[in-house]
This record gives sequence, structure tokens and C-alpha cells, in this order.
Amino acid sequence: MKAILVVGDGMADRPIRELAMKTPLQVANTPSLDKLARNGICGIMDPISPGVPAGSDTAHLAIFGYDPYKYYFGRGPFEALGAGLEVAPGDVAFRCNFATVNEDMIVLDRRAGRKIESADTLAEALNCIKLNSFPDILVNFKHTTEHRCALVLRGPGLSSKISDSDPNQNDILMLPIKPLDDTREAAHTANIANELTSIFCKILDGHPLNEIKRIKGAKVTNAILLRGAGILSKEIKTLNERYGISAAVIGVNALVLGVCKAVGMQHIKVEGATGTVDTDVKAKAKKAVEAIDRFDFVYVHVKGTDNPSHDGDCEQKIQCIEKVDDLVGHLLDNIDSRESLIAVTADHSTPVKLREHSGDPVPLAIIGEGVRTDNVSQFSEIDCSYGGLGRIKGIDLIPILVDLMGKSKKYGS
Amino acid sequence: MKAILVVGDGMADRPIRELAMKTPLQVANTPSLDKLARNGICGIMDPISPGVPAGSDTAHLAIFGYDPYKYYFGRGPFEALGAGLEVAPGDVAFRCNFATVNEDMIVLDRRAGRKIESADTLAEALNCIKLNSFPDILVNFKHTTEHRCALVLRGPGLSSKISDSDPNQNDILMLPIKPLDDTREAAHTANIANELTSIFCKILDGHPLNEIKRIKGAKVTNAILLRGAGILSKEIKTLNERYGISAAVIGVNALVLGVCKAVGMQHIKVEGATGTVDTDVKAKAKKAVEAIDRFDFVYVHVKGTDNPSHDGDCEQKIQCIEKVDDLVGHLLDNIDSRESLIAVTADHSTPVKLREHSGDPVPLAIIGEGVRTDNVSQFSEIDCSYGGLGRIKGIDLIPILVDLMGKSKKYGS
Repeated sequence: MKAILVVGDGMADRPIRELAMKTPLQVANTPSLDKLARNGICGIMDPISPGVPAGSDTAHLAIFGYDPYKYYFGRGPFEALGAGLEVAPGDVAFRCNFATVNEDMIVLDRRAGRKIESADTLAEALNCIKLNSFPDILVNFKHTTEHRCALVLRGPGLSSKISDSDPNQNDILMLPIKPLDDTREAAHTANIANELTSIFCKILDGHPLNEIKRIKGAKVTNAILLRGAGILSKEIKTLNERYGISAAVIGVNALVLGVCKAVGMQHIKVEGATGTVDTDVKAKAKKAVEAIDRFDFVYVHVKGTDNPSHDGDCEQKIQCIEKVDDLVGHLLDNIDSRESLIAVTADHSTPVKLREHSGDPVPLAIIGEGVRTDNVSQFSEIDCSYGGLGRIKGIDLIPILVDLMGKSKKYGS
Repeated sequence: MKAILVVGDGMADRPIRELAMKTPLQVANTPSLDKLARNGICGIMDPISPGVPAGSDTAHLAIFGYDPYKYYFGRGPFEALGAGLEVAPGDVAFRCNFATVNEDMIVLDRRAGRKIESADTLAEALNCIKLNSFPDILVNFKHTTEHRCALVLRGPGLSSKISDSDPNQNDILMLPIKPLDDTREAAHTANIANELTSIFCKILDGHPLNEIKRIKGAKVTNAILLRGAGILSKEIKTLNERYGISAAVIGVNALVLGVCKAVGMQHIKVEGATGTVDTDVKAKAKKAVEAIDRFDFVYVHVKGTDNPSHDGDCEQKIQCIEKVDDLVGHLLDNIDSRESLIAVTADHSTPVKLREHSGDPVPLAIIGEGVRTDNVSQFSEIDCSYGGLGRIKGIDLIPILVDLMGKSKKYGS
């Protein structure tokens, strides 16, 4: 038995007055999700634990069976892994933004307009640069999507205990990076990060692409904001090592891909998958159906549901949920339930009224041979709470799926 | 308030196509279990944790309130305790099989035909033997049921980190026992176990009972297979020490009895209790009714439901479930609900289609004075999931019962 897990990022919500106190999941037209709920087993799941809002990174760690309190040491390394950079033990990695600053280093736009022209070329100019004061530090820098980049520092005596340069809002000064503890390593790494930031700014400022922008009167991309410094947990055993299952991921979000790679999933690229509302869910579903022939476990991540939640855009969230429904519909039509389970959930709730992740549990449904079916007939936050799975934790999901796949190991005799 | 806990071993299951996607519990005629569900509180229980298949030993430890990850160091000591052998700290104990091997030590029958004639006499010939190379090692050997025996080694410097000689299938060589770590103790114990195995074979081979079998042309019982080497956790406080409750067990399975003895239960023998499908459940129920006068907690174990599950025999499983129902019916008729709780559950799921333990939760129902009753009216894997207990873990069961018994201790003021 195999398994496909579909996650609608931030898909779960709270009742909304404008929707007559229903949630987007309840209002959206979701015949396939409801079919899955009706013919499968449902429940609700606390990604980390009740009332604790999970990030996409910590939620994914938990959902893949890795206690985030044990395996999470900052966002940076997952972002970097997802971007395709190598992250080794001892490396310190960052999530970065292309940004626009003025001559006083006041951040005019934390995202430099979000759509960065020739971002890869700009990033290339920053990759592998040498620092005069720190000649033994290797710098790896890479652009991912829009304004987003990743940075990995490699060298002796580094620490992730340093603050961000990203002020997290516009029109204030870029922050100097400071050590967050009293160790020599933290002070050393803060110094490196500050020198690097100033060199990055110099290189970008003098880059021909920015010269052209200035002539055009366009917004320049003349700074890099660093945040989420982190290291990788030393001993992340892969899903294969833990459960003897080969695994692949279909998705584009760098942070989530990073977590997937860290647990040993192979990335399957899909033409038309964008990580936004216009993503081609049918293409993703088709790839998943293909991939389940080659892998025991295929993880399909749909980022689109989270962005409108953060933007407070209820209507677009409903549209994205309906796209998740389309995706699941294609799976239901093309997957033999005697050969593969299909599970659908969210990595966390992102209530549109909150525009941020909340600690509410998320709905979960599993269908396939061997599953005990319950009476739930709708896939929603409340309906699923009446389901036969009860209320579980994110960390229990993979053990449950692995057991239904017939790959669990008995403890005792 | 007192409590009787009835466990149908491996009683829980998954939906079965031949039963119109119902489980054996749903199909069996169980008026008494359903009455208990209707008038009591129901829930589902993960013996260890969601998706983790429990052994009967680890499940029983958990259900009695002992974290199996803390208290389980191999099956052997529980098997030996259950057989009536003494197991002290430092002893290494094994589960053993009478077996039939040929002159090349190829295992012809791991169970020597299962029904061993004069097994007690054969076992007696192996008990208390002395090893020439290891004069300070005491050997205790005892027959339990059918082909099953238990062995306890006592002496200085022993370790349980050794492999089995049981190859776990017929027609291949008996395995040499090997140390599983680099310690002197493991190497020493492996040497002892190998010498013992060869002496056991010699004694059995020359035993007059086997001479007779050879003359008759019957299958000889000429080898002992060792497995499940283990030690006892040093500090198992009894249920009485933990909760101030006196406890007794009614059952015959050596492994389960061993766990019961380890947590301080007194064994009540019942004429007609066999551990198989033909067990006299009425006799067990009568003994339980008698015993609850003398003990605070009476545990009734019915092994019969697990064997047909492992054999894939759905019909016999249903019959055995109906026997559990008879047992519970007798309890309901003869126990005053103001004086004693009755709780029924399974130690783990053993889906007949899987023929092995699975990690699915098991149904649970509790009846008696003080219990909050819910809307569940059928005792089944799914119906109980809608119950007022929600989804609990095995380790929570005894604290819940002890609290309903009025014997719990407040934490805080």
C-alpha cells in the first residue's frame, strides 16, 4: 500500500461573519473533498499542539513525524535546502530578501517591488564572494522566487544565534545584526553577516542592472535583508531510514521543499506549478498519479490557499480551496484505493480575519483500503471534528499512514 | 468502588470486504457489549500511540499504566514470570519453543507439531542442568502451553543483548546466537546460550520419550529454540504501590500473565480457561464475580480473539467475540454497578486481513456509578470513536479507572 498526502497550506480557517459564520472550507464548492470525507475517516489535527500556531516549516516537520521542538533550529537552512543550496552541519543559513534602501539605509521596500527583474543575475553577482576580514568563510547565495533568496555561510566557529537585519516593515532603518548570546561564535557570525550585508549593498548598488533601472526611474534592488538564521539538526533520519518508505514531493515553495528535502524526499518538478493562486493543480495531480508508481509516499503541497489568507482575501481563498478540490478530484478518479491511500489536510490554520497563522486544529481525511470509515460527509473544520480519528497531533499522522500502508513495525511481541 | 477490566486480545479490526465493509465486532451478535456501550461511556484508545502496532506485552504494560518505552526490555522475562519462574534483576530470560530438527540442525518444525506429548517431563529433564564451561550459571527451564517454554539464566555478568536461535521459519538452519553489542557481557551470554542449546539438544535427542516416538515413527521433540532475550526493568512498582489497589488476573496466556505478575497481580486459576476458542468464558466470568469481592481490580484476559485474527479466520474471530460478549453479559447480570465498574477493550487491533497487529486504535467502554454516559449504542471500532471519552492512550486507562474508583490522588491543592 502507498499513500498520497495533499496539504492545502493555511487552508483551515475560523467562522467569518460575511460568510454567515461559516468558514471558507464550508462555503467553497468541494465535491471531491466531501467525497473523500464521506468514504474515508476524518479527524482534526493539531499541527504542533492545541493552541500553538505553527509555521509552515515547523508544521511540515511535525506532519512528517519530526518533533519540531527537537528538529527545528531556524528557518534559514530549510529555505536554503529548498532553494537547492547545500547545507551541512555547522553551516549557518538565512532566508533573504532583495530590498530597496535609500542612502541612509532606510528600507523603502522590503521586497524591492516583489517582482525582481533579472533576479538570478543579481544573485549570481553575490554568490561565492570573498570577505577580506573573514577569508575562511564560504558564501553561497541563491535566488528562489520573486524577492526571496537564500544564503549559506560555511566556515569554522559559526553560530545561528544572531538577529535579523530585516526590520520587518518599511520606512525604518535596516537593522545591524547582533549576537543573541554571549558566545564568541555569535559575535563572530554577527560581524561576518554585517560585513557581508555591506558588501552585498555595494555590489548591488554598482550593478549595471541597477544603473539601467536608475536611468529608467525604476525601483532599484540595492540591498539584501537577512533573517531566520538557523542551523540544521545534526541527525535528521530520512523517512526511508525511519519507516522504509521512498518519498517524493510535488510543490514549489522553497521553505516547504527544504523541509521535504531534509527528510529525504525527492523533488518532482511540475510545469505550471507556481505556488500562487494560478497554479496548475491538474498538472500537479497528474504528476502525483505518475509518481505514486515509483514512490511509496507522494506529498503534494498547495501553497495557493495560504497567500490570500495572509492578504485577508476571503474570495480568493475560496477559489484556491476549490482548486485543491479539483486536485483531489483528479486523484480520486485516477488512484486505485486498494493500491494507495489519499489523505488531505492543512499544515495550519490561517484565518483570513487574522491574516496570520492561528493555533486552531486543521481538518484531516484519509481514504483507502483498510481505513475505518465514519459518518462524516463534509470536509470542514467542524465536520471533521466528529470523525473517527478524533483529535490527533501532527506528529501522529505519518505513523498512522505508515501503519495503514502496512509498513509499521510492532513494538513488543 | 472496584473495577473489572475485560480485554479481548486483538479483538479490534478493520472493515472487511466479505463482511460488507464491516468489522468482526460490528457483525458479531454482541447484545451485552452494546448494552455496556449504551449505558456507559465509550472512546477509542491507542494502546501505545497512534499508528504504532503494540505487542501483547507492551500493550498490557501500557494499559496497566506503565510506559512500555520505559518498562519493556524484551519479552523473555514476562514469558518466564507467566510460566511461574522467578525472574530477578540481572537475570536474562527467554521465550522458548520445543522444536524438531534434523541431524544437520535444519529446523523441520519450529513447534514440534504444536501438541507436545509429556512436555512437562521433557522440560523437567532440561531444568537445573549444569554447564561445564559456565559452572556459576543457574538454568531454570519450564514448559507452559503446547510447544511453548520459558528459560531463565542467572549468574554474574549476563546481558540480554543477544540474538535468537529461532530462525522464525521452517526448513532453514537453527541460528547461532550472537552478541548484539560489543560488550563482554553480550559475548559471554551468547556463548552460554549456544552451549546450552547444544546440551538441550543432546538431552532431548537421547530422551526415552523420543526413543519411543522414533519407534512409533512420530515427530521427535529434539531441540529448543530461544528468542526474545530480555531483562526485567529494575523498578516496577506494583499497582498497589502506585494506586493502593489490590489486583488479580484471570487468564492463561503466559506472556500476559507475566506482565500481570510484574505489576503485582495475583493469578486466579480457572478450570476450563484454555486461552483458545474453546475457553470456558462463563467459568471465567464467575471467577471474576467471586474475585471482585476480594480484590479492588480484577483483570480478565481473553486470548481467544487474537488467534483466529492471526490465522485470518474471520468466522472464528466473530465466534470468539461473541464469547467475550457472553462473558460481559454474565458480569453485567451479576455485578452491582454501584459497587464495581466494568470496562471492556482490546489490547491492540489484529485485522484478520493483515494477520498481524496493526496500529489502529481499539474501542473502549466503561460502565458503572459515576460514569458520564454518552450517545454511543454499539460497541465497535467506529461507534466508540464518537464516544464521550474521545481518543485516549493506553497509559491513561488505569488512571481513569482508578479515579472513577475513588482512589486517585489529587495533584495540587
